[in-house]
Amino acid sequence: MFVVKLGGSVITDKSKKYFFKKEVMDKLSIEIKKANKDIILVHGAGSFGHILAKEYMLNQGYRNDEQLQGFSLTHAMVQKLNSLVLSSLHDKGIAAVSIPPHVILKLDDHKPSKMDYNVFRDYLDKGFTPVTFGDVALDKKLGFSICSGDLLLQMLAKHFKPEKVIFALDEDGLYTSNPKIDKNAEFIEKSTMDELENFTTNSNRYADVTKGMEGKIETIKNIANLGIDIVLLNGNIDNRLYDTLIGKETKHTLIYGEKK
Amino acid sequence: MFVVKLGGSVITDKSKKYFFKKEVMDKLSIEIKKANKDIILVHGAGSFGHILAKEYMLNQGYRNDEQLQGFSLTHAMVQKLNSLVLSSLHDKGIAAVSIPPHVILKLDDHKPSKMDYNVFRDYLDKGFTPVTFGDVALDKKLGFSICSGDLLLQMLAKHFKPEKVIFALDEDGLYTSNPKIDKNAEFIEKSTMDELENFTTNSNRYADVTKGMEGKIETIKNIANLGIDIVLLNGNIDNRLYDTLIGKETKHTLIYGEKK
Repeated sequence: MFVVKLGGSVITDKSKKYFFKKEVMDKLSIEIKKANKDIILVHGAGSFGHILAKEYMLNQGYRNDEQLQGFSLTHAMVQKLNSLVLSSLHDKGIAAVSIPPHVILKLDDHKPSKMDYNVFRDYLDKGFTPVTFGDVALDKKLGFSICSGDLLLQMLAKHFKPEKVIFALDEDGLYTSNPKIDKNAEFIEKSTMDELENFTTNSNRYADVTKGMEGKIETIKNIANLGIDIVLLNGNIDNRLYDTLIGKETKHTLIYGEKK
Repeated sequence: MFVVKLGGSVITDKSKKYFFKKEVMDKLSIEIKKANKDIILVHGAGSFGHILAKEYMLNQGYRNDEQLQGFSLTHAMVQKLNSLVLSSLHDKGIAAVSIPPHVILKLDDHKPSKMDYNVFRDYLDKGFTPVTFGDVALDKKLGFSICSGDLLLQMLAKHFKPEKVIFALDEDGLYTSNPKIDKNAEFIEKSTMDELENFTTNSNRYADVTKGMEGKIETIKNIANLGIDIVLLNGNIDNRLYDTLIGKETKHTLIYGEKK
């Protein structure tokens, strides 16, 4: 079984308000269908979630009643993105079922406090493909906050111990330093977490190509420390996801899981 | 607190495929906002759910893998209707939150087996308006089946013991016999369940105006037997819902709850 994250920057254009990259998603849906594996899908909220969530400062928790409307609207927009993702999956013949986190999970000061994993198991066992996503969520301490797609990924990885966790990004994977400013930057095909931390220390910045990758490193580390392999790949390029799912050689970064 | 059901025939045109009655819904949203009460909303699936559910025979449970796609598609359509309902509520300033039953409830041979009521309580307590709806659902015995809006209504009534359960229908309420064929039919303003059963026995048919009302009688009985008052009103006509919510006189049928 695999847990696959479709990055918000792959399926939406973060520079444009509420822009769904239907062509990329359709391509990914075809690859997922073709691979025919047990998969839990997670997708980011991209521009559908971040704009409103920021506007209403939802991640800082409850401050005023205006935020209730903000919470509702943010969920509605993310649900809209989810419907677009689901529609693409259905079109390609995948029996995908939406699992909205705001009703099955509770946070406590941004950290997971309660989660109904059975609902994922139940749908998987019946042959469905569960699809969850970065969303607003209730928070014991803060009233409400944000549950990112990356947090869901870590929770699902910890609970289900998948064969691999796969990140579909809009970059090929990780480099030893930033290839946009360092011509000696080398692409990392395979790495342990220790080696990776070495690169990041050496270059005194995370071994990322985008600023957005910085936050990913923490997620990658947390998953690798569970003993689960993680693959980072370019979701825009044909068959990278498919080849990875069926175990065929392709360009991607593999981080070996090592139980700490 | 109130539990309010917006009938599928009020918010959709059952004779047209996927036709949402936006004007009626907007009117109801304004009335709900104006009444300013704690409400759990339930809406029917109407033409968004019934067509596909029937096509794939979902209510008969699992028979073949094609139904998986049918289950996914049916949920997607009902979710679409729910998004339209939510969007209307949001437009009128209600902090409505979607509570899709397919992830919080489980049936067992069509009967309720598990339900997370806390999620309704949590959202209510924070000042949100939870909105749930007739949907597909997992079923222990059958694999999957259908959870109607009426079943949800009974479950929510039993658990939350609301002040009143309100049905917004496309009829004024109940008559002593069918007013379309019996000119002596009288409108029932108030009735106990015993009196109502008397009417239905006398006329040798349920005291309904539409065929669709027949199934409602069982729901009404189950809720009245919990000791909870039930109101049936015409959701199409201005202020019937609003007046009922604030306790003002209006045309509707009130069935007194009586604990059995």
